[in-house]
Amino acid sequence: MNKDKKVEVGITVKKSEDFSEWYTQVVQKAELADYSSVKGCMIIKPNAYSIWENIQEYLNKKLKKLDVKNAYFPLFIPESFFKKEIEHAKGFKPEVAWISNSEEGERLAIRPTSETVIYDSYSRWIQSYRDLPLKLNQWCNVVRWETKATRLFLRTREFLWQEGHCVYETIEECNRETLMYLEEYRKLCEEFLAIPVLVGRKSEREKFAGALYTTSIEGFMPDGRGLQMGTSHNLGQNFAKAFGIKYLGKDEKEHLPWQNSWGVSTRLIGALVMVHGDDKGMVIPPKIASTKIVIVPIGFEKSEKIVKKAKEIKKDLESFGVILDDRKEYTPGWKFNEWELKGVPLRIEIGPKDLEKNQVVIVRRDNGKKKEVKFTNLKKEVGETLEEIQKNLFEKAKEFLKLNTVKVKNKIEFENAIKDRKLVEATWCNSGECEGLIKDKLGVKSLNIPFEQPKINGKCAYCGKEAGVICRFAKSY
Amino acid sequence: MNKDKKVEVGITVKKSEDFSEWYTQVVQKAELADYSSVKGCMIIKPNAYSIWENIQEYLNKKLKKLDVKNAYFPLFIPESFFKKEIEHAKGFKPEVAWISNSEEGERLAIRPTSETVIYDSYSRWIQSYRDLPLKLNQWCNVVRWETKATRLFLRTREFLWQEGHCVYETIEECNRETLMYLEEYRKLCEEFLAIPVLVGRKSEREKFAGALYTTSIEGFMPDGRGLQMGTSHNLGQNFAKAFGIKYLGKDEKEHLPWQNSWGVSTRLIGALVMVHGDDKGMVIPPKIASTKIVIVPIGFEKSEKIVKKAKEIKKDLESFGVILDDRKEYTPGWKFNEWELKGVPLRIEIGPKDLEKNQVVIVRRDNGKKKEVKFTNLKKEVGETLEEIQKNLFEKAKEFLKLNTVKVKNKIEFENAIKDRKLVEATWCNSGECEGLIKDKLGVKSLNIPFEQPKINGKCAYCGKEAGVICRFAKSY
Repeated sequence: MNKDKKVEVGITVKKSEDFSEWYTQVVQKAELADYSSVKGCMIIKPNAYSIWENIQEYLNKKLKKLDVKNAYFPLFIPESFFKKEIEHAKGFKPEVAWISNSEEGERLAIRPTSETVIYDSYSRWIQSYRDLPLKLNQWCNVVRWETKATRLFLRTREFLWQEGHCVYETIEECNRETLMYLEEYRKLCEEFLAIPVLVGRKSEREKFAGALYTTSIEGFMPDGRGLQMGTSHNLGQNFAKAFGIKYLGKDEKEHLPWQNSWGVSTRLIGALVMVHGDDKGMVIPPKIASTKIVIVPIGFEKSEKIVKKAKEIKKDLESFGVILDDRKEYTPGWKFNEWELKGVPLRIEIGPKDLEKNQVVIVRRDNGKKKEVKFTNLKKEVGETLEEIQKNLFEKAKEFLKLNTVKVKNKIEFENAIKDRKLVEATWCNSGECEGLIKDKLGVKSLNIPFEQPKINGKCAYCGKEAGVICRFAKSY
Repeated sequence: MNKDKKVEVGITVKKSEDFSEWYTQVVQKAELADYSSVKGCMIIKPNAYSIWENIQEYLNKKLKKLDVKNAYFPLFIPESFFKKEIEHAKGFKPEVAWISNSEEGERLAIRPTSETVIYDSYSRWIQSYRDLPLKLNQWCNVVRWETKATRLFLRTREFLWQEGHCVYETIEECNRETLMYLEEYRKLCEEFLAIPVLVGRKSEREKFAGALYTTSIEGFMPDGRGLQMGTSHNLGQNFAKAFGIKYLGKDEKEHLPWQNSWGVSTRLIGALVMVHGDDKGMVIPPKIASTKIVIVPIGFEKSEKIVKKAKEIKKDLESFGVILDDRKEYTPGWKFNEWELKGVPLRIEIGPKDLEKNQVVIVRRDNGKKKEVKFTNLKKEVGETLEEIQKNLFEKAKEFLKLNTVKVKNKIEFENAIKDRKLVEATWCNSGECEGLIKDKLGVKSLNIPFEQPKINGKCAYCGKEAGVICRFAKSY
């Protein structure tokens, strides 16, 4: 909306100079999201919601192949459910929103996550080994009563996500699949969103409330902060015990099953903006873009042939998702700015001279490079260029991650690297006490502990005690 | 789950004998939905959620063509928003759920519908005629604090729906599109869900709180009740006034725009069960079924050839959505019952004798008819049979509606027809007073007033005053 104003304004700060303000401007001016009059809540606008729908479509296909089915569970959770798993209750207590009209004498929470309300049902549905594995997923809204300042997509009181909830006979199957879903998330981020991520296990202090252990994928943002982009929790038998989920095994004895849960959220859209956006606005990786191409005809007021040809091209490229911007009330320059701001991966320009030469000019959003392409080659060239853009965005982000990762050996190096907003890889004692010290002193949490560990020889880079692991640390969102 | 028990039990009452109990059994035993421990809330299980996803896919395609875009607005609505449009506030007051932790000194409601929270944003987004029409839709959960007994899909405190919200320059455009969305709903119900519906305008008493007028599609259920299956409201300028939505026209003057809103919900799944289900369980119309065919091999323990052929057939029919049920722990008879209970439209049986004769037996779920079909004809025959099933389900439902529609001329006929659980078409005075009397005496509301009206000559069938319209009445959900 407000089409005129938007372009007069554009993005008024540089990404490298005021990242936080730059982010807010891109999100709002590219019409991805907006603040609401409701404190702490966001409006997801069509440009971002279509990205979310593409993520849904991508993941739904993957999950179907893994025999996970979609379902929907209630928004409300009785307080008593929350109290059943003590660690879970403690972990979520500060951020739960409650309903005031619950006439049953029991308070109802609005789900911050759905383990409890889903496992109450599982305890009734699961009786025999034949009912296992049980693998359900839901796409829904969740509410966490944030008190910190709102950041669109990153920290809001309500957000959208998917949460998978599986039940297995054996711990081996549960372990294996916990990692399998994490691997799907890694692929989603790297192959679809073009964002490199670091896989690993959360520290005890940072694991999900009630889990046996938590695995995660962590991204690293241009402002030197880690961003948790997806988690997969092995819940062990903790919730099975708390909710009385039991099954009769082939051995005709009663057993406790093993469970995992896993999720990604609309936070991923925030990561897309931060990682790929530039001083001109949003840059959408081609694979996640509903509109991959915009055609801007030039000087077409004087020649009907140009619009005719542009329409032909549009039809020819339809499978890519293409817009023909033949509005007469805006200049080509205005349109270039608008579509760059919105992040459409590829622009096709066609003017009188191009028509003479049987060609168009294609312009890449990621690096601004222009190329003249003959009509006959266009479809092939466009396909290849979109692939190159996807690849280039990923490689650039990977290079950034590499350049900003620092291995530290002692406290001074640790502190300096954090001050320099680097991603720290430290030999570490893996103790909650040390992590507490690090947090108090540097305002930093551990991101995760890589699955593949070298042989550790030496001391904790921070506290000097015996080191057990390599762990990643960074400022975080 | 509980696979063994389910079949021992099956549906234990006849649809014609105890409709309400029959409905609950089908919904639960076909694993469409389940009650939750949370009072008034339902769990939508995968068999029903996949139907909902198919409805979403169908409507999303249609809406995209009509230039409606999907977005997402906050779950929470400040109390002050509710108070802005007085009729709207009054209408929804009794059924709103409130959050208890709103530190801003203002109560927050959980959305029962989103006009207010969306139009607050629209008032900021819309400034010029260039911003119009603005056409957004959201798929979300809504909450209405029902105090009546829960009916899965039909009356629950939380349900899923879509709500479209459009803003136009002129009343003509708004009127036209209000009807256009209703027409899309009619097509969804009749052509996709195979449920005939009656289109028309709601009475003043039954219109949406805050609307200028409401249009609806109404179904008629086998227990003699009307079911409102979708509504499209022309909101006039009521909300524009209340929320200060204004635009600068081409004439450079400020104008109030015109708005509509329209929605369908998971209630449609309840209608599917009621209209098409039978004494054996659910019957899913082929077009809405994710799994249209189940293949049950017979006697395959003795012959590998049968399963091999069944797999070939599966591959050949894959585009229809097909399951091969080659589980060894269940008998064919058990499987027939299971898939009939779940409503899969077509069953293919293949045994040793069929294999010899290069044929299978196909069995229709809608009428139980069997047919031998040669392998070479199978794909074509299956496609045609599925189309016939779709058509037959619609025709049967249409016939039922026709047989149960009664034109009444006076109060006695009116009362008798309602007692007989008919759908009443009455010449009517179209007054709120008369409708109040009808409701108090017969417990009946008007469904809607057909758009196409004959010339009315005579008196109101109920109160005897001057008649203005033909109107439909029935018991309702």
